[in-house]
Amino acid sequence: MYLEKINGPEDVKKLTVAELPILADETRAAVINRVSKKGGHIGPNLGIVEFTVAFHYVFDSPKDKIVFDVSHQCYPHKILTGRREAYTDEAHFGDVTGFTNPFESEHDMFTVGHTSTSVSLALGLAKARDLAGGTENVVALIGDGSLSGGEALEALDYAGEYTGNLIIVVNDNDQSIAENHGGLYKTLRRLRETGGMAEDNIFRAMGLDYRYLEEGNDAVKLVEALRGIKGIDHPVVLHIHTVKGKGLPYAEKNREQWHGGGPFHVEDGSPLYPGGGGENIVYKCLTELMDSNPKAVVLNAATPGGIGFGPEQREPYVKRGQFLDVGIAEENAVGMTAGISRNGGTAVFATFAPFFQRVYDQMSHDVCLNSSPATFLISNPGIYGSDSNTHIAICDIQMFAHIPNMVYLAPVSKEEFVQMFRYATTQRKHPTGIRFTGTLPSSGIEDRTDYSVLRSQVERRGSDAAIVAVGVLFPKAVAVAEKVFAETGKKITVINPRFLQDVDRELLDSLKKDHRLIITIEDGELMGGYGQNIAAYYGDSDMKVRCYGISKEFHAVHDAEQILADCGISVEKLTAEIEAFLNA
Amino acid sequence: MYLEKINGPEDVKKLTVAELPILADETRAAVINRVSKKGGHIGPNLGIVEFTVAFHYVFDSPKDKIVFDVSHQCYPHKILTGRREAYTDEAHFGDVTGFTNPFESEHDMFTVGHTSTSVSLALGLAKARDLAGGTENVVALIGDGSLSGGEALEALDYAGEYTGNLIIVVNDNDQSIAENHGGLYKTLRRLRETGGMAEDNIFRAMGLDYRYLEEGNDAVKLVEALRGIKGIDHPVVLHIHTVKGKGLPYAEKNREQWHGGGPFHVEDGSPLYPGGGGENIVYKCLTELMDSNPKAVVLNAATPGGIGFGPEQREPYVKRGQFLDVGIAEENAVGMTAGISRNGGTAVFATFAPFFQRVYDQMSHDVCLNSSPATFLISNPGIYGSDSNTHIAICDIQMFAHIPNMVYLAPVSKEEFVQMFRYATTQRKHPTGIRFTGTLPSSGIEDRTDYSVLRSQVERRGSDAAIVAVGVLFPKAVAVAEKVFAETGKKITVINPRFLQDVDRELLDSLKKDHRLIITIEDGELMGGYGQNIAAYYGDSDMKVRCYGISKEFHAVHDAEQILADCGISVEKLTAEIEAFLNA
Repeated sequence: MYLEKINGPEDVKKLTVAELPILADETRAAVINRVSKKGGHIGPNLGIVEFTVAFHYVFDSPKDKIVFDVSHQCYPHKILTGRREAYTDEAHFGDVTGFTNPFESEHDMFTVGHTSTSVSLALGLAKARDLAGGTENVVALIGDGSLSGGEALEALDYAGEYTGNLIIVVNDNDQSIAENHGGLYKTLRRLRETGGMAEDNIFRAMGLDYRYLEEGNDAVKLVEALRGIKGIDHPVVLHIHTVKGKGLPYAEKNREQWHGGGPFHVEDGSPLYPGGGGENIVYKCLTELMDSNPKAVVLNAATPGGIGFGPEQREPYVKRGQFLDVGIAEENAVGMTAGISRNGGTAVFATFAPFFQRVYDQMSHDVCLNSSPATFLISNPGIYGSDSNTHIAICDIQMFAHIPNMVYLAPVSKEEFVQMFRYATTQRKHPTGIRFTGTLPSSGIEDRTDYSVLRSQVERRGSDAAIVAVGVLFPKAVAVAEKVFAETGKKITVINPRFLQDVDRELLDSLKKDHRLIITIEDGELMGGYGQNIAAYYGDSDMKVRCYGISKEFHAVHDAEQILADCGISVEKLTAEIEAFLNA
Repeated sequence: MYLEKINGPEDVKKLTVAELPILADETRAAVINRVSKKGGHIGPNLGIVEFTVAFHYVFDSPKDKIVFDVSHQCYPHKILTGRREAYTDEAHFGDVTGFTNPFESEHDMFTVGHTSTSVSLALGLAKARDLAGGTENVVALIGDGSLSGGEALEALDYAGEYTGNLIIVVNDNDQSIAENHGGLYKTLRRLRETGGMAEDNIFRAMGLDYRYLEEGNDAVKLVEALRGIKGIDHPVVLHIHTVKGKGLPYAEKNREQWHGGGPFHVEDGSPLYPGGGGENIVYKCLTELMDSNPKAVVLNAATPGGIGFGPEQREPYVKRGQFLDVGIAEENAVGMTAGISRNGGTAVFATFAPFFQRVYDQMSHDVCLNSSPATFLISNPGIYGSDSNTHIAICDIQMFAHIPNMVYLAPVSKEEFVQMFRYATTQRKHPTGIRFTGTLPSSGIEDRTDYSVLRSQVERRGSDAAIVAVGVLFPKAVAVAEKVFAETGKKITVINPRFLQDVDRELLDSLKKDHRLIITIEDGELMGGYGQNIAAYYGDSDMKVRCYGISKEFHAVHDAEQILADCGISVEKLTAEIEAFLNA
C-alpha cells in the first residue's frame, strides 16, 4: 500500500515513476470504496485517476494551480491532497464535499459545480500571476462535454491570444453526461483517430498550441507528457484520451448511467437501494405533447435524464427530430426556442434551475423581447433543489418573474402542472416558465383551470388571516390552516398564487374587508421574492403583511426542512404565530 | 435612379445583375443620407450594402428568412424591403428603429440588439421549418466581432451537427467595435490571406461546410456565391471579406470611431454637433487604480469606449498588461475576474448593463459563490440607459442585488462613485457592483464615507414623510423636499440608500417614531426592485409605504422623464402627493 503514506503531493513525489500505476490503482480503489457506499460522480472520477497522480507527481500544488471544470472529477485530487480518509474510511465520508472547496484545502482553488468555467478561471489566475511576476504553472482540466459551453468556448478563444503560461488539459472520454452534441465532437473523434494529427484542429483554430496523448490512463506516459509542458511560456492544450468509468466494466460500458448515482454493489453494479419507478409527470407531458403535435420540439442541454429521457426513451423522438439535446449549450438552446416559436413550432426547453442561470439574457432578449410563445420547465429551483451550494438556485423568481412578457407559474400539484403545461404549449402569445420540484404531490383531482385568465386560487376561504404559499410550500399552508382550525375552531384563508409575475389585485383587494394579516411563504430567497410584491401592494393599507422566504446565502449543508424552519417556515411556528395574532 | 422604384425585394429582382452595383451605390447613399443627419451605426451598414442587395436578388424574403446578428447592419435591408423613405426623406426618419423589427416589416424576423444570437435564432427557424416540411432557406448574417460570444460559438458548434438547410454568412471586416480579441481572429486572418485555404479552419473544426469569397463588397460576385448555396441541404458557412465603413474614406480608415455615432458632415466626417469633453469620472478612477496598483486589471468586453478608453487612452495600459479587452465574451471576462481576484489581483470588469444580463450565472457562481473581491461597473442600468427596447436593462437590481455575498451600490454623485470605487477596489472580502449612469451630478463635496460599514445616508431629516431615492433619482427627491418646504414650511426626510442588497434596519426602525409615510423611487423595475424591500420590512408595522418604479415593459419609445412620470415619478406629482398626505 502506497496510498496510506500519501498525505499530500510531496508524498506522491517520493515514489518512482514505475510505482505510480500502483498508486493510481489504490486511488481508484479508494474512489470506488466511497462511491459504492455513498454514491457520487462515478465515471468522471474513475477516468481521471492516472492524470491526477501524474499531475501531483510533476507539478507543485498549491504553488502550481489546477482548476477542475465542474470539479465533479476531483475525488482523486482530494485523495492525494490530504483528504484520503474521506474515501477510505466511512467514518470520514462527511469530511469532504463532492466538489473542489477552498475551505477544505489549499490545493482547491475554487468552489465550482457548474460546467465550462475552468479555462476562464485559470486565465484569471494566470493573469494575476503575470502581473505579480510569478512563475507558477496554471492548469485547467476540462472534459470534452464541457467544451461546448459558451464560457468555455469564449475562454479557449481568448486563451488563443494570451501570452503567458497556461496549460489546458482536455480530458476526452467521448462522453458528456449523455452522448456529446455538436460539430466539434466530430473533430475530437478525428483527432483521437489520428493521434492528434487530423486537419482542422479546433484548438489550433482558436490560436492555441496543441499536443495529443492517446494513453490518457497511463500514469507513466502522462508524467512524460506533463514534464514536456511544465513551465511552458504560452497557452497549450494537452488533449488526452481517457476512459470514463475506467476500472468498473459496467461503468465503462454504460457511460451515461454511470456518470453518477447512488450506492451500488461493486461486483455487478446493482444498486444497493433499488428505487421505485413511479410516474414521471414531466416525461408524460412532454411525450404526450410530441405525440400529439408534430411541430412540437423538446430541447434539452445535456441533462436528458433529468426529465426522464434515458437513451431508450429519447430514441424514437430523436429519430422524429422532436427531441434535441444540444449538449452543454443552454444559451443556444434558448435562442433556438425563440427561433422555433417564431417559425410556427412549439418549443419546450427543460433543464435544472441552476443551469437556467446561464440564460438570463437569452430569456430576456431572444425570448421575452420577441414574446416567443415558448415553454420553459425550470426544475428544482429554491431550497428543495440541491444538496450543494454549487447547485442551489434560490433566485429563480428574482430572475424570471420580472422579465417583461414572461408568465411565471408555480404549480402546487401534478394536476396543476399538467394543466399549466397544456396551457403554455397551446397558446401563442407569450413565453411561459413553469417552476417545479420533483416532489410535486398529487391532488387527485384533474385541474381544468383556464390559465389564459391569470387568477390566484383561494384553496379555502376564512377570515382575519391568510397564508399565501408558493408552489411546493402550499401543503404547509394547508396544514397550518387545519391546525389552527383544530386548535381554535377559527378558519383562516389559504391562497395558491399560481402565477408569480404579478399579484392578483382583485383578490388582494377583496381580502381587505375581512382580513388583517397576510403571511407569505416561499421556497426561494425572501428579498426580491414573490411575497414582497404582496407587501408592497398592501404598503399603503392597514393590512399587515409578513413575508417569509429563504435567507440570502449559498446554503451548503443541506436540509431543506431545517433551512425553512430557520427562516421561519414551519407548520408549528406559523400556526403559533397566527394563533397569537388571532388572540391579540 | 433605381432605388426610387424599389418597394420590396421583388423590385430588386427586376434588375439585371449588372445593374446591382448601381443599386448598391444608391442604397449606400441613402444610408449615408440618414446617418449623417441623424446618427446611427455607420460602419457596419456601409460594409454590408452589396451583400444585402445580392441577398434580396437571389433569395425570396420573407419566405426565405434572414436573421441579422445584433441587426445594427440592417439599414440596407430596410431600404430594400419597403422602408426606403426612412433613409431618403428626413420626414420619415422616425418610421424605423435602428434594429430589425417584426412590427415594421414581414422581412424582419426578430427584434434584436444584443450580439451573437443570429445562429441560434436561425437554427430555431430551420428546425421549425424542417418539422413543418418547409423548403425555405434560412440565413444568419453574423459579423466577425460577434463570433467570439458564447451564444454564437455554442450555436456554430450545434450547427455543425445539424442536418438541414442553414446558411451562415460570416461578414468579416476584421473589426469588432474596437479591434477583435481572441485566437480565432488569427485564424480568420489566415483564411482571408489564403482565400479561405488556410489549415485549421475554425468553421470546419466546428463540423461545418465552408466557402470563402474575398470580394465581399462586389454585388455581382456575391450573387454568384449566393446562387451557389441557395437551397443547400446542410449547414454551410459563407465567409465574405468586407470593408467596414465602405464608401466613406474616413470611416474606412478609422473603423473604431466610425462604428456608430452622431450626425456628421459627409465631406470630411466632422461632427455636426461637436460635444464637450468633460471629465469622465469612470476613466479617471480606473486609470488612478491601474497607476497606483500594479496588480490591478481592468477588463472590458468589446466596448472600451464606453468607459473612456479610446485607442490612445488604452494603449499604455494594454502594454502594461493592465487593460484587457476580451472581445465580445462577457462570460469569460467575469470568469477571469474571479480568477484574478483569487490569485491576489484587483479586477474590475466594466460594461453596459444590458450586457451584464449575459453573465448572471458567472456573477453568481464564479464570483459570488467564491466571494471574489472583484468590482463590477454596471453602466446605464434602468430607464436612463437606453433609447431602444433592445438595450434597456430595467432589472439590474432584481438580478444582482439578491445574489448572496454581493454588495450592490448606487452612488448619487460623482464623489460617491469615487469613494465607493475606492472602497470596492481596496477591500478583499466580497464582490461589489456599482450601478451608475453617465449623468451622475457632482455634489461638490468629497465623500469620505467608510463603506465597509453599510449605512444609508439621511440627506435631510424631517418628519412625517420620507422619500428613499435610488441613485440617479436622488436629486428628484431633494427637489420634492425643497418644494414641499417652500410650499408648506414642512420638512420631510430624504434618504439615499447607497447599498441595495439589503435595507438599513436601524435607520428604518428609527423612522417609525416620527414618520407615517415612506415613498420609494427607483429608475429600475418596480416589481422585485429595491423599494419593495422597504415595504416588506415595514409590512407588519403601521408605516405606510408607497413604492414607485418602472413598469414591467420593454420600453421602446424612449423618453426617460416621460416614462418616469407615467410611472408616478415626477417632482410635481410626488410633491402634491406628499402635501396631500401631510394635510390629510
